[in-house]
Amino acid sequence: MKVGIIGATGYGGVELYRILSSHPNVDECILYSSSEMDVPYISSFPHLAHLSDHILKDINVEDIKNNVSVLFLATPPGVSKNLSPQFIESDVKIIDLSGDLRLKNSEEYEKWYKRPCVEEDVLEKAIYGLSELNKEQIKDARLLANPGCFPTATLLGLAPVVQKGIMNENSIIVDAKTGVSGAGRNASQAFHFPEVNDNMRIYKVNEHQHIPEIEQMLRVLNEKVSYISFQSHLIPMTRGIMATIYGSLEDSYTTEQLLTVYKEFYKDSPFVRIRRENEFPATKEVYGSNFCDIGLKVDERTGRVTIVSVIDNLMKGAAGQAVQNFNIMCGFNETTGLQAAPIYP
Amino acid sequence: MKVGIIGATGYGGVELYRILSSHPNVDECILYSSSEMDVPYISSFPHLAHLSDHILKDINVEDIKNNVSVLFLATPPGVSKNLSPQFIESDVKIIDLSGDLRLKNSEEYEKWYKRPCVEEDVLEKAIYGLSELNKEQIKDARLLANPGCFPTATLLGLAPVVQKGIMNENSIIVDAKTGVSGAGRNASQAFHFPEVNDNMRIYKVNEHQHIPEIEQMLRVLNEKVSYISFQSHLIPMTRGIMATIYGSLEDSYTTEQLLTVYKEFYKDSPFVRIRRENEFPATKEVYGSNFCDIGLKVDERTGRVTIVSVIDNLMKGAAGQAVQNFNIMCGFNETTGLQAAPIYP
Amino acid sequence: MKVGIIGATGYGGVELYRILSSHPNVDECILYSSSEMDVPYISSFPHLAHLSDHILKDINVEDIKNNVSVLFLATPPGVSKNLSPQFIESDVKIIDLSGDLRLKNSEEYEKWYKRPCVEEDVLEKAIYGLSELNKEQIKDARLLANPGCFPTATLLGLAPVVQKGIMNENSIIVDAKTGVSGAGRNASQAFHFPEVNDNMRIYKVNEHQHIPEIEQMLRVLNEKVSYISFQSHLIPMTRGIMATIYGSLEDSYTTEQLLTVYKEFYKDSPFVRIRRENEFPATKEVYGSNFCDIGLKVDERTGRVTIVSVIDNLMKGAAGQAVQNFNIMCGFNETTGLQAAPIYP
Amino acid sequence: MKVGIIGATGYGGVELYRILSSHPNVDECILYSSSEMDVPYISSFPHLAHLSDHILKDINVEDIKNNVSVLFLATPPGVSKNLSPQFIESDVKIIDLSGDLRLKNSEEYEKWYKRPCVEEDVLEKAIYGLSELNKEQIKDARLLANPGCFPTATLLGLAPVVQKGIMNENSIIVDAKTGVSGAGRNASQAFHFPEVNDNMRIYKVNEHQHIPEIEQMLRVLNEKVSYISFQSHLIPMTRGIMATIYGSLEDSYTTEQLLTVYKEFYKDSPFVRIRRENEFPATKEVYGSNFCDIGLKVDERTGRVTIVSVIDNLMKGAAGQAVQNFNIMCGFNETTGLQAAPIYP
Repeated sequence: MKVGIIGATGYGGVELYRILSSHPNVDECILYSSSEMDVPYISSFPHLAHLSDHILKDINVEDIKNNVSVLFLATPPGVSKNLSPQFIESDVKIIDLSGDLRLKNSEEYEKWYKRPCVEEDVLEKAIYGLSELNKEQIKDARLLANPGCFPTATLLGLAPVVQKGIMNENSIIVDAKTGVSGAGRNASQAFHFPEVNDNMRIYKVNEHQHIPEIEQMLRVLNEKVSYISFQSHLIPMTRGIMATIYGSLEDSYTTEQLLTVYKEFYKDSPFVRIRRENEFPATKEVYGSNFCDIGLKVDERTGRVTIVSVIDNLMKGAAGQAVQNFNIMCGFNETTGLQAAPIYP
Repeated sequence: MKVGIIGATGYGGVELYRILSSHPNVDECILYSSSEMDVPYISSFPHLAHLSDHILKDINVEDIKNNVSVLFLATPPGVSKNLSPQFIESDVKIIDLSGDLRLKNSEEYEKWYKRPCVEEDVLEKAIYGLSELNKEQIKDARLLANPGCFPTATLLGLAPVVQKGIMNENSIIVDAKTGVSGAGRNASQAFHFPEVNDNMRIYKVNEHQHIPEIEQMLRVLNEKVSYISFQSHLIPMTRGIMATIYGSLEDSYTTEQLLTVYKEFYKDSPFVRIRRENEFPATKEVYGSNFCDIGLKVDERTGRVTIVSVIDNLMKGAAGQAVQNFNIMCGFNETTGLQAAPIYP
Repeated sequence: MKVGIIGATGYGGVELYRILSSHPNVDECILYSSSEMDVPYISSFPHLAHLSDHILKDINVEDIKNNVSVLFLATPPGVSKNLSPQFIESDVKIIDLSGDLRLKNSEEYEKWYKRPCVEEDVLEKAIYGLSELNKEQIKDARLLANPGCFPTATLLGLAPVVQKGIMNENSIIVDAKTGVSGAGRNASQAFHFPEVNDNMRIYKVNEHQHIPEIEQMLRVLNEKVSYISFQSHLIPMTRGIMATIYGSLEDSYTTEQLLTVYKEFYKDSPFVRIRRENEFPATKEVYGSNFCDIGLKVDERTGRVTIVSVIDNLMKGAAGQAVQNFNIMCGFNETTGLQAAPIYP
Repeated sequence: MKVGIIGATGYGGVELYRILSSHPNVDECILYSSSEMDVPYISSFPHLAHLSDHILKDINVEDIKNNVSVLFLATPPGVSKNLSPQFIESDVKIIDLSGDLRLKNSEEYEKWYKRPCVEEDVLEKAIYGLSELNKEQIKDARLLANPGCFPTATLLGLAPVVQKGIMNENSIIVDAKTGVSGAGRNASQAFHFPEVNDNMRIYKVNEHQHIPEIEQMLRVLNEKVSYISFQSHLIPMTRGIMATIYGSLEDSYTTEQLLTVYKEFYKDSPFVRIRRENEFPATKEVYGSNFCDIGLKVDERTGRVTIVSVIDNLMKGAAGQAVQNFNIMCGFNETTGLQAAPIYP
């Protein structure tokens, strides 16, 4: 099978390449870039010397249709709007890592993303690819909207208690922390090393475009969910997301009971690891892997539960989950090409 | 005036020394240590070469009484229990940076600290030294319990809305993040560089000993407060605390209105800086200084406000506030010796 | 094939496990530890949840002889001295990652390591495992001394110009920098996060035990080499070694000519990547991989060449090279189990 | 006295402001910027809230002449070429922190800086401001070329042994390491956090523009010096420079003898601290201060000495030394406004 990556010179693109280039069912990986073409890939990424002799190709829709079975879009917001529709009638399956196809309501998209949304008929065809929560639909998807990094960590942390009505639907508060690679590869002063090192900041207060994505999926799980509080913080680390989630329990539960609920909910999900009581995951414990690790604890004093969910933002939060969805869409084992252990330390 | 520091070889002690050694009202700073004595201070801290010729002295109560007007205890938990009472009848004023004297309820202390509490009559004499909230009592204090780092950031962030009943008293959730120097200078695997770098973790879930300290002071501000949710996270940075605080508003307020409330509340507090609308403080913006910077924003969708409060844990969270209290106790200007700008970047 | 790892709870041990647990020729990996036994491995390393159900076993020589074909010793200095000799008459091949078997001269060992050396007859049997420089001997090795991290980076950087007499043998200066994981997993104040973060230091000035190891191998390449200058620096990063090497050229060479010499020298070495002119490797470009990347440049003004050699200290500097040697010793392809791309960023 | 800072929105400028705003002999500090004007300074640097109410002013030569006694240029290369000459006939003393006025040979400047040099007559008037080595000339300077960060650390480390002919003049090798703030405040991909964190790289191999600056001053100390080897490395830290210097001794010296030479050489230099035998400075030990700390050790095996010299690149490497020179030029005590202890940790 031949696959293509558009946006191969970004962090999401190169992580896709890392996985797909050793995926046993992928024969060839064709790399496209709008910014650089006819240039060796190792000019952008010298760490791939001896491993890649790819030349970056210009984005040509006909060429892609003729050569590629599955196309990954690891592109900035707005690119997919123009590109995806051109493949809808073709045999090429699309996995879009951008946020362009995730929100079903185009007004919401335009409100939060502050740019025009893709056409409604395209949106309708897009399947939301949170692998663990939507596997049946993903199997038949031809146009897949790969989830955002924060929504992945948050939704996997919340799904069991929200779906079962264990958590009060209007009490959900998510305090999220992310490493800097989530901001992409383009330099800007906000991510200049001396501004980030030994420092931390909150950003996009009340305005993160991942908020409606989280709420949309929570309402699929439980229609009573209205609005959540969600804040994002920039942490001086390269990779990793932690979502610390707070919510009120509708009834009295022990930590042990909730852990049993989570283990049961995720018993067929190889990438979700529920930690033992009194053990909580650190971000580095999933570094370079596709795992989502979850720990939780009930506070009897307040009647709230705290849920901690961590992922590697470039893996389960982007490229790893995209390949997991690729596996599901192609009928491969879900874990193919994704079995590598986290790198620690 | 002569002052003494017990525990001078710890991070809190050396930060006290940094401030006090250039304090215009301090003539001499005598350094005591239980672990090292008759050793030059610069053996522990070579960055003080040319600046200090101090020899660490053994802790001798009579010697201290004869030589020192104010004694700072920058000691591990449990030390103050034995040491403080010996000075109560003396002329020596005590400023205790440990947690031993902060909780008025000795059962609470023993429950959260898991060690015996100081005697009740000593506790009664101890004044809680959150400078901005307790200034009148601090003026006459002879035994001062200097606040913890998390309580300082949290309480300064919450005081205006809690005291005025603007925030629902049972809706308070504090997601706190700290740099590693807050854990002190003793090495342990949890703070081994490869375990912390490029990583983050939650710790002491539901069990942080600063929780009852925060609740105790919140109830002084507003007796309706019962329990808060508070979680602490370890961030790969040396200094800095951020408390991200969530709570429901009892009525409808705009961000602008709340900022006005905060500016009014802190109008006589030189170390509290309320940020402009849509501006939020990063931890590095208070690095090395005694400031507490606060930003906030109302979310009309959820009816909650998010308050961000940052301090340098070794300054306003420990040594800086101790000197601020020292100034208040001695009748000096509150900012004496504490006017240095943050170091940035 | 069954292999064993002694010292599985250290950083070198867990990196060995990461590689060997997915090595296609390894059927089972048995983990031994002197500090913890009958305990699940994931208690030490929760990042291996779902990936390992190993129970740490006590070190029992008979048990090892009966169950294991190749035994890796990832142990502190001094352990191998007692353990290795017990396997010499057995069928178990030993790969020792410690420094105990590397120096052929036992007086040198005792001078630099400040502890008793292993017996001479054991030393004689030990083969020095710098894979690229000693491949023929490694093929038949039954007792392999895996090189140190600094010697690996330094020797691969120097070998072509020293062996061919291009560099003046008495002009060699090596300025080495290392990440902190090279110091192992045990906490100490020197590696306490606040002491290392945003900081750097030189250490073991003129006294690093890797100096005689480098000199010994350089003299194998060129008997005229006498002494080198070598200094090591601790850098605030988790993984990575860079050796910046300076030396005088005996004759006039261009950078291009030297690069050709290096490419020819390493043409059969899949893990050594010679960079193009004016391109120099960063440590992160080999992160998590077994590569050694080398760049160099001649300075016509001074007649010296600067050579930059980088490795991941836990991979090519320890566990990766150990598996490379394991492959060579067992007749597998040298790269088996080691083909993963570096993780970037 | 009124002083002006041009380039106040850069890292060098804001560090100048930090020092000068609390300098007892400075009444007013006027801030100029070409990129932003009529904007509050705290818009660029919110950490200065409550400390600065400055409005950035446009650069107007007449306005400066009328209002300012000493003008600091903390500007990118090329700016000083146009600006400095306009003040030569005026009463305004100029302290230029850029490299434009440092090299006496304009051809050298154009070769290394790759831009046109300032006019020869302006160059002639410029005094090189390495305070410890050039104090007499600095006293009368009206146009001062403040040294580069690497030259400061390197020259202070080398001066005693080069001036006295103790070190072979053609054996000097400098391996320099720097934090990222030395690259300034403008973002670029090379300094994007994920590219720098947990990583290190060499840069400008053989081409650093500080090389001729170092050699020029070394030749003033000892005319036999020809060329040095100098390489610079980027370290994942915000502040700090370490120069590790290697050279051959002309005669046999002990470490103790050399330390005595250094202590004598710098006996009137309050900012140079010579470490005790077997003690070497870490960069953080001068963090935020104007100190240069030096340690050294002789290697009898090789006949070489290794000298380690550390500074804070924004302080002794830029703004701190500029103020030290300002003090000398104005007849103040050399340490005025510069006595603050390093911040540790």
